Amino acid sequence: MEKVAVSSDSESGDQLSYRAAGVDTSKQDAALGSLLQRLRGTWSYGTRPQLEFGHFANIVALGPINVAISTDGIGTKALVAQLLDKYDTVGIDCVAVNANDVLCVGAVPQSMVDYIAVEKVIPSVLDDIGKGLAEGARQAKITIVGGEIAQLPEVIRGEGDGIGFDLAGTCIGTLDSDSAITGVKISPGDVIIGLRSTGVHSNGLTLARRVFGATGDRPLRERRRILSQYYDELGSTLGEELLKPTRIYVAEVMSMLSGGINIRGLAHITGDGFLNLPRLQASVGYVIDNLPEPPPIFNLIQREGKLPDVEMYQVFNMGIGLCIIVPEADASAAHEIAGSHGVDAFTIGYVVEDLDRRVEIVQLRLRGWRKKGFQPVL
Amino acid sequence: MEKVAVSSDSESGDQLSYRAAGVDTSKQDAALGSLLQRLRGTWSYGTRPQLEFGHFANIVALGPINVAISTDGIGTKALVAQLLDKYDTVGIDCVAVNANDVLCVGAVPQSMVDYIAVEKVIPSVLDDIGKGLAEGARQAKITIVGGEIAQLPEVIRGEGDGIGFDLAGTCIGTLDSDSAITGVKISPGDVIIGLRSTGVHSNGLTLARRVFGATGDRPLRERRRILSQYYDELGSTLGEELLKPTRIYVAEVMSMLSGGINIRGLAHITGDGFLNLPRLQASVGYVIDNLPEPPPIFNLIQREGKLPDVEMYQVFNMGIGLCIIVPEADASAAHEIAGSHGVDAFTIGYVVEDLDRRVEIVQLRLRGWRKKGFQPVL
Repeated sequence: MEKVAVSSDSESGDQLSYRAAGVDTSKQDAALGSLLQRLRGTWSYGTRPQLEFGHFANIVALGPINVAISTDGIGTKALVAQLLDKYDTVGIDCVAVNANDVLCVGAVPQSMVDYIAVEKVIPSVLDDIGKGLAEGARQAKITIVGGEIAQLPEVIRGEGDGIGFDLAGTCIGTLDSDSAITGVKISPGDVIIGLRSTGVHSNGLTLARRVFGATGDRPLRERRRILSQYYDELGSTLGEELLKPTRIYVAEVMSMLSGGINIRGLAHITGDGFLNLPRLQASVGYVIDNLPEPPPIFNLIQREGKLPDVEMYQVFNMGIGLCIIVPEADASAAHEIAGSHGVDAFTIGYVVEDLDRRVEIVQLRLRGWRKKGFQPVL
Repeated sequence: MEKVAVSSDSESGDQLSYRAAGVDTSKQDAALGSLLQRLRGTWSYGTRPQLEFGHFANIVALGPINVAISTDGIGTKALVAQLLDKYDTVGIDCVAVNANDVLCVGAVPQSMVDYIAVEKVIPSVLDDIGKGLAEGARQAKITIVGGEIAQLPEVIRGEGDGIGFDLAGTCIGTLDSDSAITGVKISPGDVIIGLRSTGVHSNGLTLARRVFGATGDRPLRERRRILSQYYDELGSTLGEELLKPTRIYVAEVMSMLSGGINIRGLAHITGDGFLNLPRLQASVGYVIDNLPEPPPIFNLIQREGKLPDVEMYQVFNMGIGLCIIVPEADASAAHEIAGSHGVDAFTIGYVVEDLDRRVEIVQLRLRGWRKKGFQPVL
């Protein structure tokens, strides 16, 4: 919660850098810190929320029950939809980014409201967005109970006149007073199970588009052409691959919980990649030593952009969309449940003692910290 | 909920028309209808929400309690803030548009999440937005428990390079299972109490800016100059007046409820003006025959834009930000409580039998229906 989703980057020297350029991270941290301090001041106006800012969702006690709440948008995936003139899946992404976050604190996602800011009301586009939202709701088993369509031609722009839009939502979920999963119970020796992503999900789209030259620096027609290029290794066009809807992990995680799996931590792998793991409330380190081969899209992006591993693993999920931390004894049962939902699961690593909350990706000799990013191990 | 907030208009002939031009209402209705049908389809995926789309907020049962939820943004008020380079009050508007909506179904606003989409992270601007959000939360007695800052330079634009932003939020509130105020208990003879607005609030800003020529058709410097013009009748500059934060009605309504006032309907007067009254779930008509003089800003806008009453009363709140429907016997007590909170209250009209749900503004000889708008009575 109160994340900064950085979807901007610009070229810095020869390499495309997601953090060094375009966005000054330290400046951004300062801005966020000050904002968060003000918002934290509101916690005395009611019942104090149960988590600090920085979790995937926060939890508020509403009378006898606890409600988890999270808000998020799909970022520049909207631009990919515009270039492809295909709007019927971004609604799934919108549900996914919110429902997966609510899930990460151990809550059962229940309901959502959507916020659609458009440059112009285009009925067929709104209808397609609705189609995706409904499909996402079906997958996440939630109801969409309200929303807002704001027509703001002077605020919103996009890939062509009048077709700009921004899509965000807010999801609420419920949990028993003792069932929050914050990571506090994570212990050294626990294993990290990674569930397959469907591709880039809703993060890193700006970098991905820029790598292929499909951004505003090129003429619109050119941008469309780039995204419509077919790649054998993807088995689809670039645009189709980038637009693949974000996987919603509600069903498999709910099955694990009801199946008695002792889930001690859940991390939605969004922007910052595996550096989302230390958002969990445990003073431990994470060693990732058994990552499966990333899906082809990531190799393609890295090759095309000549991007270093540091960059790739800081921006993209690299094929793992959700990490589940369980005691080693529960790992095989968790794998089995994931498999029964048709999702590939991998035991990608384990938890170690480390007050510094370091994340290490052994195969790639990368070491990272939540606020500092990854560094190559020399 | 799932409102279309139309913040766009363009010139049509000699007159500035908010509905006839820029936005084709029927097309928009069609678009919305189709979207809503899809979203309504999600209601079978969980516990069905308690209200239809179209209420100020919806209500979901989460275990033993009922939670009201609403999402809304501040629209083009963000552009006024940019032109004035003053960002510390729009957060109040963001809380207001959401908390007032949640209030309207009889819920106690509890917590909020904010969504800030920015063209670029400008620390001082974010800090000021946070300042307003915190002040709004104080007034609404809610906590802000999370949020999202999305930096989307290709999606967001504004009044000058890099300063564009969009600000929205989602508020949740609680209510007992039998305490929802939907309007269903409204009876002919009930009176309509109007509470003073602080000005235009968060609606009609596009029309207001256009009337004075402070929109994108003119150079930026000129737009800034127009908003910095001082008006004796306002006692301030035009920009300062337009930027005045939306009043938050939580404290006074909560006092009325706890003071035993039998509130049968609550209507947040936003876009569509008094045509928000028939959003209440009662097959009755509303006769408004005792409107107080609108605050000077409305006369100024009407004069400057040569706008007909129909237009004015369809777009602006005209000085009344919230309508409270109570049995006549409770009116004076309600007035007293509003007064004790420093808010001017007026008994502006009464409820009549009318299956057509007509709204009549007697002094102005206007008659209107929710979907059709106002018409002059010939």
